[in-house]
Amino acid sequence: MSRFDPIESLTDDESLAHYGRDWTRFWPARPEAVVFPRSTEEVVDLVRLARRDGLKLVPSGGRTGLSGGAVASSGEVVVSLEKMRELVELDTTEPGLRAQAGLPVGELQRRATEAGLYYPVDWAAAASSQLGGSIATNAGGIRVLRYGMTRDWVQGLTVVTGTGEVLELNRGLVKNNTGLDLRHLMIGSEGVLGIITEATMALTRPPPEQSVLLIGFAGLSSIMPVFTELRAGLTLSAFEFFDRRSIEYVAGATGEDFPLDGECPYYAVVEFDDPGQASQERALELFERLAEAGHLADGTISQSLTQAKELWRWREAISESISPMTPYKNDLSVRVSRVPEFLDALDRLVSEHYPEFEVVWFGHIGDGNLHMNVLRPEDWSIGNFHAAGRELSPRVFELVRQFEGSVSAEHGVGLLKREDLHYTRSKAEIELMRQIKAAFDPEGIFNPGKVF
Amino acid sequence: MSRFDPIESLTDDESLAHYGRDWTRFWPARPEAVVFPRSTEEVVDLVRLARRDGLKLVPSGGRTGLSGGAVASSGEVVVSLEKMRELVELDTTEPGLRAQAGLPVGELQRRATEAGLYYPVDWAAAASSQLGGSIATNAGGIRVLRYGMTRDWVQGLTVVTGTGEVLELNRGLVKNNTGLDLRHLMIGSEGVLGIITEATMALTRPPPEQSVLLIGFAGLSSIMPVFTELRAGLTLSAFEFFDRRSIEYVAGATGEDFPLDGECPYYAVVEFDDPGQASQERALELFERLAEAGHLADGTISQSLTQAKELWRWREAISESISPMTPYKNDLSVRVSRVPEFLDALDRLVSEHYPEFEVVWFGHIGDGNLHMNVLRPEDWSIGNFHAAGRELSPRVFELVRQFEGSVSAEHGVGLLKREDLHYTRSKAEIELMRQIKAAFDPEGIFNPGKVF
Repeated sequence: MSRFDPIESLTDDESLAHYGRDWTRFWPARPEAVVFPRSTEEVVDLVRLARRDGLKLVPSGGRTGLSGGAVASSGEVVVSLEKMRELVELDTTEPGLRAQAGLPVGELQRRATEAGLYYPVDWAAAASSQLGGSIATNAGGIRVLRYGMTRDWVQGLTVVTGTGEVLELNRGLVKNNTGLDLRHLMIGSEGVLGIITEATMALTRPPPEQSVLLIGFAGLSSIMPVFTELRAGLTLSAFEFFDRRSIEYVAGATGEDFPLDGECPYYAVVEFDDPGQASQERALELFERLAEAGHLADGTISQSLTQAKELWRWREAISESISPMTPYKNDLSVRVSRVPEFLDALDRLVSEHYPEFEVVWFGHIGDGNLHMNVLRPEDWSIGNFHAAGRELSPRVFELVRQFEGSVSAEHGVGLLKREDLHYTRSKAEIELMRQIKAAFDPEGIFNPGKVF
Repeated sequence: MSRFDPIESLTDDESLAHYGRDWTRFWPARPEAVVFPRSTEEVVDLVRLARRDGLKLVPSGGRTGLSGGAVASSGEVVVSLEKMRELVELDTTEPGLRAQAGLPVGELQRRATEAGLYYPVDWAAAASSQLGGSIATNAGGIRVLRYGMTRDWVQGLTVVTGTGEVLELNRGLVKNNTGLDLRHLMIGSEGVLGIITEATMALTRPPPEQSVLLIGFAGLSSIMPVFTELRAGLTLSAFEFFDRRSIEYVAGATGEDFPLDGECPYYAVVEFDDPGQASQERALELFERLAEAGHLADGTISQSLTQAKELWRWREAISESISPMTPYKNDLSVRVSRVPEFLDALDRLVSEHYPEFEVVWFGHIGDGNLHMNVLRPEDWSIGNFHAAGRELSPRVFELVRQFEGSVSAEHGVGLLKREDLHYTRSKAEIELMRQIKAAFDPEGIFNPGKVF
């Protein structure tokens, strides 16, 4: 007998540990139980039960988050959506699909592709993340430059609020100007307003064949002019940059030889439409013009899908190859045009205060999004290094504030950035968020202690 | 001396009548005064004054709205943004611009074009509408199919709330996952939450040359298959449909000869990318295939920009050519795939209850957006006809509810659809909107009586 009957639940230690945490490992996993509703109605029942018994609920998707948004450390009930993974409808007329929130995004992508369509939002954890979680965190990833964030693909949401109301937000309409858009309020809300139980997502046509340029920049000041020229001349899907240290770590981890001269300070993987290799000539022309202008020092272009994948590896393998150095990571953004200036200021800040630390930079230049990875020197303990990281953070975030940037470009706030939210959002904004939370969830049932 | 000094104000009858109304003419214009702030700070001063003296403020842009959202009928103070029309910054690296809210959208489009860029949101009133108003009403128009609504182009907003706080929402960032997105809450809020004083808008590259197909459908059931095929085979910017009655009225008003056989029940203007006429062959192939399948009865393709404009006229001139019949208009939407079924049901509803009324249909098929225009028979008085329209509305909106559609696809709610909001938004949603309004504007200063 469980108080959640007939809704399936688990309370064994292993399950609590498993479902109580996300990809972060900073907080203990201590939920009271994990429950597995199978319908929107069962989620409503859980909210009613929570109100009656004073329970707190943590909405839970694939738990691939990096900010602790799905962590349950204080006796909450984890509401796992993983048994709600039905694809309800696939519409090829108006390309889109409706699915329950627990559908893995990888499966969504696969089902779209099988129907001759395409779901373009993609990131490292997409395969194991779930649709509802990707919406609640507004997942971004490697093709935001071309296709935007998850936000841009949400056409309808079914949501259960903290009073147990079921909201049908926007119902898959393209145009609907009838008052405040609560759908967009739910997107990126990290589970503090309600539980997303179903969603209608737009799909698109698959892109044409893609080719990849790997280029080496002459210096920091060349990055933006190159980005601007290539974006104007080609149809880009990605413009992902990384620094020289990144290639050293990837080469060390994979044993591969870097295909360019390794002496440039910065590199980029540039992916662009190239149906039947019709844009290769144009790409080479642009490359030569940028090389003559002194912006590019080296480069190569993929001649096949296999080669394109090999070039992509130099960007994709960075995170994994630096993980032994337990990096202190930050996911920052500024306006695109300010990226070089910001990168320079941040680099100087770290080398001034922590000359013994190595920093590995990579990120999505086209989105103004930089991933800063400070590596732990071999002779530092993890504890001391994390303490130094915590000391460094306010300086980094103060710089973000000066540049009018974001302390969390795509990873969200969760538990990790809660105390740092004020660097990006004003006191008045945070107070408005609190009041909106009180409207959706007056008893504070959902995801207590998260975001603000 | 005025209590608004040093902020410019007007109280003469002519100005009150002019600034107190929008393009609707259903409500009297009776503001107390019109004020013209020149900066965000002056808007803050106005909010402070309103709080102190118990004034109500109506935010006011180009007043081209069709739902009374900017009407001031009850002694409110109209806050006209028209003296705040400065273009603050134009960024060509990350294509975008920052401007004060009173900049006319037509001027914004022109400035973007001059810089080799493009602002694609376009609709009949764009030239005289203002940026802030277009954001507060989430303007759509004729190229939503390709470029989305105004919402999709807003990267940052400066907003003054009802407590006089200045919010800097999102600051032009592409990626910013830091809590609830208040920017999207402001978009389409029709002035009930705050006054938008500045905005950062994304721009894009100009599209390649466009060509236009004018096609005649064999019947209602052919519209969606044709749309699906043409969208899959061409890069569409617009797919605008209209009925046979439309062409009769346009021909009558303009004296032009319709270039096709006029016996089809429905027609469409289809605009697509055609650089150097490279897609003409493909378009003709698709046309022939669809004609052989019995979907298309007739068609023609533009061979020049002049011809393209001429073909567009058959869609663009409809509204004006039926205006002498003082039509009873509705701006409805359903999911794209349900358009034919909805159109059919609505047509039957009207002819059953009002067999003496003519209905002219046009709209944006690709967005699921239909404009229904019931024409006044010559022998009906305007008064009687409007009474019949008011009687018809609940039946139409009930059908919209059954089809899970929207009672206002792009025109907003304002005063006109306030009592009909419940057909599209649930009681729980409307209650949440009220509470959000109370958080932004606790004393109810902004746009009283509008939307909900």
